[in-house]
Amino acid sequence: MNRRDFSLRLAGAVGALSVGNSRLGAAQLRHAFQANGPALNGDRINQHLTALSEFGKNPYGGVSRVAYSEFDRQGREYVMGLVREAGLEVSIDVAGNIFGKRAGSNPALKPLLFGSHIDSVPDGGNYDGDVGVLSSIEVARSLKERGLTTRHPIEVVIWQNEEGGTIGSRAFVGHLPDKDLDLVAKSGKTLRDGIKFIGGDPTKLSTLKHVKGEYAAYVELHIEQGGTLEAEGLNIGVVEGIVGIGWWDVTVDGFGNHAGTTPMDKRRDALMAAAKYIQMVNRVVTSEPGRQVGTVGRIQAFPGAPNVIPGQVQTTLEVRDLDQAKIVRLARKVMEEATKIGAENGTTFTFKETYLSTPAIMDSGVQKVIETAARGSGLTTKYLPSGAGHDAQYMAQIAPTGMIFCPSVGGISHSPKEFTKPQDVVNGANVLMRTVMALDAL
Amino acid sequence: MNRRDFSLRLAGAVGALSVGNSRLGAAQLRHAFQANGPALNGDRINQHLTALSEFGKNPYGGVSRVAYSEFDRQGREYVMGLVREAGLEVSIDVAGNIFGKRAGSNPALKPLLFGSHIDSVPDGGNYDGDVGVLSSIEVARSLKERGLTTRHPIEVVIWQNEEGGTIGSRAFVGHLPDKDLDLVAKSGKTLRDGIKFIGGDPTKLSTLKHVKGEYAAYVELHIEQGGTLEAEGLNIGVVEGIVGIGWWDVTVDGFGNHAGTTPMDKRRDALMAAAKYIQMVNRVVTSEPGRQVGTVGRIQAFPGAPNVIPGQVQTTLEVRDLDQAKIVRLARKVMEEATKIGAENGTTFTFKETYLSTPAIMDSGVQKVIETAARGSGLTTKYLPSGAGHDAQYMAQIAPTGMIFCPSVGGISHSPKEFTKPQDVVNGANVLMRTVMALDAL
Repeated sequence: MNRRDFSLRLAGAVGALSVGNSRLGAAQLRHAFQANGPALNGDRINQHLTALSEFGKNPYGGVSRVAYSEFDRQGREYVMGLVREAGLEVSIDVAGNIFGKRAGSNPALKPLLFGSHIDSVPDGGNYDGDVGVLSSIEVARSLKERGLTTRHPIEVVIWQNEEGGTIGSRAFVGHLPDKDLDLVAKSGKTLRDGIKFIGGDPTKLSTLKHVKGEYAAYVELHIEQGGTLEAEGLNIGVVEGIVGIGWWDVTVDGFGNHAGTTPMDKRRDALMAAAKYIQMVNRVVTSEPGRQVGTVGRIQAFPGAPNVIPGQVQTTLEVRDLDQAKIVRLARKVMEEATKIGAENGTTFTFKETYLSTPAIMDSGVQKVIETAARGSGLTTKYLPSGAGHDAQYMAQIAPTGMIFCPSVGGISHSPKEFTKPQDVVNGANVLMRTVMALDAL
Repeated sequence: MNRRDFSLRLAGAVGALSVGNSRLGAAQLRHAFQANGPALNGDRINQHLTALSEFGKNPYGGVSRVAYSEFDRQGREYVMGLVREAGLEVSIDVAGNIFGKRAGSNPALKPLLFGSHIDSVPDGGNYDGDVGVLSSIEVARSLKERGLTTRHPIEVVIWQNEEGGTIGSRAFVGHLPDKDLDLVAKSGKTLRDGIKFIGGDPTKLSTLKHVKGEYAAYVELHIEQGGTLEAEGLNIGVVEGIVGIGWWDVTVDGFGNHAGTTPMDKRRDALMAAAKYIQMVNRVVTSEPGRQVGTVGRIQAFPGAPNVIPGQVQTTLEVRDLDQAKIVRLARKVMEEATKIGAENGTTFTFKETYLSTPAIMDSGVQKVIETAARGSGLTTKYLPSGAGHDAQYMAQIAPTGMIFCPSVGGISHSPKEFTKPQDVVNGANVLMRTVMALDAL
C-alpha cells in the first residue's frame, strides 16, 4: 500500500482524524495489540548493551566509537553477529548502512523498518543509538524464538555515522551529495574513505535513493537525551517531531587596541558586545512561551591576549524548535537586538547562516500506535519534541515515521555519564515490539 | 653622586619638594636650559624612521620585526651604524642590549642613559620604540655635530625584546632568572638562543646586575600608545609612572550538555555566566574614579561546538593602575561578584593569578625637568600614567627615571595603523634633548 493509504488507515485506526475511513477502528487496533504474545527478553538487551560498550571503551568511563574508526568496525561486526542470531539476513547497502531482513507472510505488503545507530560522539555514552539498535534486534529475535511471522517483511537497520550528521540515513534517501564525501569525519577519514572502510561503495551512492511508498513505516527507539521524562516520573516519550535547527556564524567587529593605554570610555570592545549578545540570546529565546531552545556554544576573541582589547569575536547562534517559523522569527529578533547592542559601543554584528534544517513531524497515526502500545504495557507517556536530530528525520521524508523515547538519567547525553536504567531500556523495547506488532496487524 | 643626592638636587632644582636644599633652585634650572643650543635635526629622525621601517615591513602596512628574527638582526645592524655615525662607541652587553657610549668632561659623574627599543609585536607599527631610539641617537649626533661635550658620560641604549616582556632591561637589572631562558619568544627561538643570535652571551647573564648609583638618570621618549594627548590637543606627556599589571586566568565551570535536549531553565551554561562576568568586570572597574583599566581579552568555551551548552569557559582578567592597592581591591571585588554570578546558574568561578607587576613611579624631579623642557620649547604638557609597560619600569629600580610621551594618532598602537605625526616626533626629540642637557647641567 502506498504511504497515503497507510497513514489514513493508521489515523482511522486510532480515531485521530475524521477521514471517513470506516474500514478500521478502535476495535481493530485492540485486535492488533491482542495479537502480541509475551514480552521480549529484556535481560538479553542489557547484556548486549554491556558487551557492545567494550568496543571503544574509555578507561575513564563511556565510549569513543566514532564512525569509521576501528572500534566502529568492531562494533558493527559484533552487532551483525546478533542480527544473524536473530534470524535476519544481513546486508550492507552502498552507503554502509547495515540491514537485517526477514520476509513477511504477505508478499504484497511493504516492509516495516526499525533501528537506530551504534556510532558515538568522542567521549560519548553507551545508550545513545545502542538502545534502539539492540532492542530492534531483540524484537526480531523474539519473534523468531516465538515462531511468529509478521505479515509485512521486517527490516532492522543500523544507520552509519549518525553522530557525524545522520550520514547513513541522508544517503539512504538520496540527500548526501557527492561533494560531501570529501568532508572529514571525527575518525580522520573522509566520508568517502569511511564508507569504503565499513563495506559500502561511495562510487555508487547516486544509485541510492529510496522514495515514498517503499516502506510501510519506520520506528526508532532512542534515549530521550533530555531530562523531561525523568523529571516528570514518566516511562515513555511519544515523539511529536524532531526540531528544526538553525545555525549561524556570528562575527562581532570592534577595534582591537592596547588594554593598558585605552581608557575604558574609549573602547570598541568586541567581547563586551559579545557578552551582551549572549545574554540577549537567552532573553529573546525565552521571551515566547514554548519549548524552543537557543544556544551560544562557541566563542573566541581575537587577537585573544589578556592585554589586548578584543577587536573581533567569532561566536555562534543556534535555535531549535518544532516550528520553522518560530526559528526564523527568533533568529531575526536576535539579529535586530544585536544591531542595537553594536550601536552602543561602536561594534558591528554579522550573521551568516550555516545550516537550517526543517522540522520533521512524526506521523500522527504512528504516534497514536506508540501511545497505545505504551498504555497497553501499563506505562505512562508524554508527547514531546525531540530536541536532538535523528535518522528518523530523514526517514520521515519517505515513510510514516515514529520515535519512542525512554528516560535519560539527569537528562545527560553525549557524555560518559549518559545512563538509562535497565528497566527503562526494557520498557522501551517492549513498546517498540508492541508498536511493530500493531503496525503489522493494521 | 648616589641616587638620593641626585633626586634631591632635581627636586630642589624645580622647587617640587621642600627638602631644604639651597644649592640649586629655579635660577640654576633656567641656566641649565639656557645652556641648550639650537634644536636637533628633526627631518633626519623621520628619515631614519622610514629607513628602519624597511626591516620586517609587511606588504599590507606596518612591520613585523619580532625580537631575535632575521629582521630584528638587520634592524639592529642598521641602528648600530647610526650609533657609530653619532660618534658613540658601540657595544653589546651579555643580554644583547646595544649601547652607544661617549665620555663626559667630568670623570666623577655617573652616566646619563637614554634610549628605547626597536623590536616590534607581530603586525605592529613603526613608532613604538623606534621613535625613542632614533631620537636618542639624534640627540647624541646633534651634540657631536655642535661640538658639545656633556659633563656626564652619555649612553644611548637599544633594549632587546621589549615586546616579549622587557627582556633586555629586566636582564640589565638582574631580574631575568636562568629558567626564563627556556621560554620561547615570538620568533620561535628560546630567549637563550635569541640572546646568542643577537650577539649576547646567555651563559653570563648572572654577571649582569646593574644597581642603584651606577646611573645619574634614565630617560625614555616613547609614543603614548593611548589617545589622551591627541584628544586633548596636547604636545607632550610627562609620565607620572608606569602602571602595575595584574593578570588572572579565570575558569568558569558549569555543565556541558546537549543544546537540543536541555530546556533553557535546566542549564548550567558556563558561557552565560562568563557573559555576565565580562560585563561585571567593566562595571566594577569603572565604579571608582580614576584612570584604572580592566580588560577581558581572551575567552574560549569548551567543548566549543554550536550545538553543545558550554560546560567550561576559560577566560582572563587584567587590571592596571598606578596604585597597587587599587589593583588588588578591584580584583578582589571582581572575584566576589563572580561568585554571586556563579550562584545564579550553578556555575563556579576560579581565579589564578598569573602575573602581578608593581607600579613603577617616575622620579618627580625628572618629571619636573621634562615639563620645564617642554614648556621651554613652547609645547603644551599633561601629566599622565603609562598604561603600557616599558623598559623604564626596570630602570626606575636603579636610577631616577623619566618618560616623555608624544601623541599617537587615534590612540592606536601595536597595529599597522600606529602613527605619530612627524612634527610630534620632532617635538618629542627636542624635549628629550633639552631634558638630557638640563639633567647634565644639574
